[in-house]
Amino acid sequence: MSQKIVVIGAVAAGPKAACRVKRLLPDAEVTVIDQDDLISYGGCGIPYYVSGDVPDEKELRSTSFHMVRDERFFREAKGLRVRTLTRAVSIDRKEKVVKVEDVSKGGKDTVPYDKLVIATGSRPNVIPVPGRDLRGIFTISSLQQAIAIKDLLAKGKVERAVVIGGGAIGIEMAESLADLWGIETRIVEFMPQVLPGIVDRTIASMVEQHLRENGVEVFTSEAAQRFDDDGEGWVTKVVTNGRELPCDLVIMATGVRPRGELASKAGLEVSPYGAIVVNQRMQTSDPDIYAAGDCVETFNLVTGKKAYSPLGSVANRQGRVVADNIAGIPSRFDGVVGSFIMKVFDICVGAAGISLDVARAEGIDAVSAMAVQSDRAHFFPTKALMFNNLVVSRSDRRVLGLQGFAKMGDGLLARLNAAAGMIARRAVIEDFSNLELAYAPPFSTAVDVLNAAANVADNLVSGRLRTVSTEEFLAWMDGKSEHPDWMALDLRHHREAEPWIKAFPDRWYAMVYDEIRENYEKLPKGKTFIIICNAGTRSYEIQVFLRSKGLENTLVLPGGLNVIRRLGVTWWQQ
Amino acid sequence: MSQKIVVIGAVAAGPKAACRVKRLLPDAEVTVIDQDDLISYGGCGIPYYVSGDVPDEKELRSTSFHMVRDERFFREAKGLRVRTLTRAVSIDRKEKVVKVEDVSKGGKDTVPYDKLVIATGSRPNVIPVPGRDLRGIFTISSLQQAIAIKDLLAKGKVERAVVIGGGAIGIEMAESLADLWGIETRIVEFMPQVLPGIVDRTIASMVEQHLRENGVEVFTSEAAQRFDDDGEGWVTKVVTNGRELPCDLVIMATGVRPRGELASKAGLEVSPYGAIVVNQRMQTSDPDIYAAGDCVETFNLVTGKKAYSPLGSVANRQGRVVADNIAGIPSRFDGVVGSFIMKVFDICVGAAGISLDVARAEGIDAVSAMAVQSDRAHFFPTKALMFNNLVVSRSDRRVLGLQGFAKMGDGLLARLNAAAGMIARRAVIEDFSNLELAYAPPFSTAVDVLNAAANVADNLVSGRLRTVSTEEFLAWMDGKSEHPDWMALDLRHHREAEPWIKAFPDRWYAMVYDEIRENYEKLPKGKTFIIICNAGTRSYEIQVFLRSKGLENTLVLPGGLNVIRRLGVTWWQQ
Repeated sequence: MSQKIVVIGAVAAGPKAACRVKRLLPDAEVTVIDQDDLISYGGCGIPYYVSGDVPDEKELRSTSFHMVRDERFFREAKGLRVRTLTRAVSIDRKEKVVKVEDVSKGGKDTVPYDKLVIATGSRPNVIPVPGRDLRGIFTISSLQQAIAIKDLLAKGKVERAVVIGGGAIGIEMAESLADLWGIETRIVEFMPQVLPGIVDRTIASMVEQHLRENGVEVFTSEAAQRFDDDGEGWVTKVVTNGRELPCDLVIMATGVRPRGELASKAGLEVSPYGAIVVNQRMQTSDPDIYAAGDCVETFNLVTGKKAYSPLGSVANRQGRVVADNIAGIPSRFDGVVGSFIMKVFDICVGAAGISLDVARAEGIDAVSAMAVQSDRAHFFPTKALMFNNLVVSRSDRRVLGLQGFAKMGDGLLARLNAAAGMIARRAVIEDFSNLELAYAPPFSTAVDVLNAAANVADNLVSGRLRTVSTEEFLAWMDGKSEHPDWMALDLRHHREAEPWIKAFPDRWYAMVYDEIRENYEKLPKGKTFIIICNAGTRSYEIQVFLRSKGLENTLVLPGGLNVIRRLGVTWWQQ
Repeated sequence: MSQKIVVIGAVAAGPKAACRVKRLLPDAEVTVIDQDDLISYGGCGIPYYVSGDVPDEKELRSTSFHMVRDERFFREAKGLRVRTLTRAVSIDRKEKVVKVEDVSKGGKDTVPYDKLVIATGSRPNVIPVPGRDLRGIFTISSLQQAIAIKDLLAKGKVERAVVIGGGAIGIEMAESLADLWGIETRIVEFMPQVLPGIVDRTIASMVEQHLRENGVEVFTSEAAQRFDDDGEGWVTKVVTNGRELPCDLVIMATGVRPRGELASKAGLEVSPYGAIVVNQRMQTSDPDIYAAGDCVETFNLVTGKKAYSPLGSVANRQGRVVADNIAGIPSRFDGVVGSFIMKVFDICVGAAGISLDVARAEGIDAVSAMAVQSDRAHFFPTKALMFNNLVVSRSDRRVLGLQGFAKMGDGLLARLNAAAGMIARRAVIEDFSNLELAYAPPFSTAVDVLNAAANVADNLVSGRLRTVSTEEFLAWMDGKSEHPDWMALDLRHHREAEPWIKAFPDRWYAMVYDEIRENYEKLPKGKTFIIICNAGTRSYEIQVFLRSKGLENTLVLPGGLNVIRRLGVTWWQQ
């Protein structure tokens, strides 16, 4: 008798596991169950469907060769049995059956299995405040929700929107509402920055500023405390601890939680967070039951700790590993480093590995090294600045993470992808200095921005480079912190430095980069110089030179004014 | 007394080593010698200077902050002594002096050193055929040559050009002549394909076709045998073994050779090819003499053999390692995997690691796995097809190389950069299947094309996927090889397959992908089916299915018709 394989959940990990296992074991009877009727869709495409970039939801569930991935497709093309609108109610591990019910007609039934795959995904977090059930408040939990949002937009009923949550999905939704629908959109984020836990403050501030420049106001360190309605059940206002935001639409994008209840009820091990615990073969605590995708717990290869990584790409890779192991191929999924990228209007931002904040929270003595340089040869016409920030451990020089900010395009992806595999393999600074990134002037520079970030990290960890943090510099410039002995030493061309000297005559001193060796003795005495240029590289050279002349009290502004300019601070225009 | 460090050569490795060692040892006296007067230029930018993308040669030797890197710059900004127009004639290792002569005035002199760095670079190969010294024949050996070519073009004296050599520089020069100057340009390549030794035949053919589509004719397997002149010493014709090509300009881009003579004369170890032998610290056989850049031999991390890698990016990394070691920091340069990328009109092509041809020449039982898929989510408007071809060793599943072809942009760079570090670290197929490439719909797909190539490689090496080579399929379709039992099984939609059935009624059979499970018994008997779709993935699924039904005689066309369409073959339009 042929082996019976049952897969619960038909969005990403489920179909992947089912299709692959059917190819590996063509004689197996593979059944996929889902409570929804729309299955196997690209959930990550929802913001682009809402924006209108993707005109029809069918495109989100079509193959690249234009077949809609519905029940018929999986049956006829893939040889699977698919039961949609069918909810898995419980798992009887002794009898090896899944008890199911028909969502539309209500009938009950059992589905026997030899091997079971749980791919029940995640559900969105809903913040527990009054009014959370009002009409006009949506989560991004399913294609149906997305269709409902788009209907509302198409009817012209939305003038103002509030997105709760400044994570990736919140920002993508804000862009899709503001950019293509012209809706006045605000983001409310509970933490002090957008993309918390993913990128550090400086890069987050650059993203926030870019959102503002594109008409999306961002309120950080604010929490929604109440939703008000119009008396007829439609949301009209978000009330936070800081303000009232009138609106016709609320998107709640406050993260997701694993759907682990079915596994838990069946006595399978789940994490305190509710994620199903699996081994490297994606097996649960019952060896005949596998799990994959947003419902499982995974492992962070940088911190060495348990992690949760609900991403379509991870789900697909895990689904393949499940199929392999059911078919007797000993594939493994070892964990994640957290590769991440997103588009925000005209820029992109991304990360691989952990941020400085996360590293320090883990108790690691880490530093971050910022390189800002042209993404391609500086003489190449389409060049643009790219920001790469490498997080490294001081004690063992291990690279823990990379964050980047760049003009929209695939250039940042090229650096993140290069870093991801290296970080997973515990590479150190030298490995990144020597990383053999492909080079030609239309694509990169002879010393790539990622190599350069590693070189900065080397100089920093070895003590040759000493920096002031962006935050400390800003606080000083804002007059919020008193440093009477600090003075800016501006190395740029005279015409660049001039407006700054006029604005801050008592704390801004200019001496051009290539005149310092001749004239350093004319520098004011007894000051700590914050050495400033556009990218930080000239500043480092001059710091080294001044130290060789006995001037030890200097600090470099990392990334130079190229960073400061992108933060939306305006004091130099005073 | 301060340490004396002398650097011979001031283009890439030399200035890098000199500047870094001066930062590490500020008290050292660092002298840089070069026989030219134009120094520290981006030689890789020459094609873009000739094309006019870069309007002024000064931009090729300027910093990103617009300072020209001349003698004055290195002296005042970097604290180096620079002697241009000064040729190093010999090295007296006993006395530790470099004997130099003034190229313009002819005076002789000696320069003492404690540590010496040889960065003498390379010189272009000149093919030894009659007429090679005629006017109008140029190599791309220096900025002066480039300026002379551009002068000629600007005077409107060039209508037809021939580029000898279909390597990267030859192709870049051909593009710059044809695209921006509108010159009728032909490439003559001695080997049977362009980019020999870098990419395999299929991808090379795609590049050749793209060149043809842009007006650059390519003659492979042809060698220039003679250059004819107009009687006044100007070239008028290139005569090959296949044809005569009238022209007003010849670019000889037939590779470069290391300039190792100075080292060799001084008794330092050089390779049979003339490259200076160095250890991982970039030290020559004399521990007080280092060497870096185009003049040294390096190591191929894939083949484990000596290699020659004359690239600006490698030179810069080696220069840094030289500086570190002179300053007592034990940095290493372990070798290269040969990361490569280039723009060709509207596409780009690249590689990391070794090609299938090279692997087989090394005696490795290797196969290549082609994945063709959308670079970003197929529902995303700016998507385009990307071709990734992974070369793997069958015995130990090690990934030996990646080659790619894509629409111009940074998407291919993102896959090559990801592969480079992994290949250097001896990653296997599974590592690439699970490689955590950053994912969001505007950048990539949930299963990235590089992950997909690894999955194809897995299926191929494990024997589940069996393929016909593109070349064999083309020979069969051209009628050059007889396979009476072969038949194409076209899985595409009816409207896609129809013209092919009309063109080849006796060897083209169509059955749509999702109808095979129902109808496979209607397939003609006794045939070997070449299963065909657009990308190869559906074909693989159907191969697996048919095998489960006892039909073993099937072969998949790798990459499907997406590959065939880009080769410029036209037989389906008959």
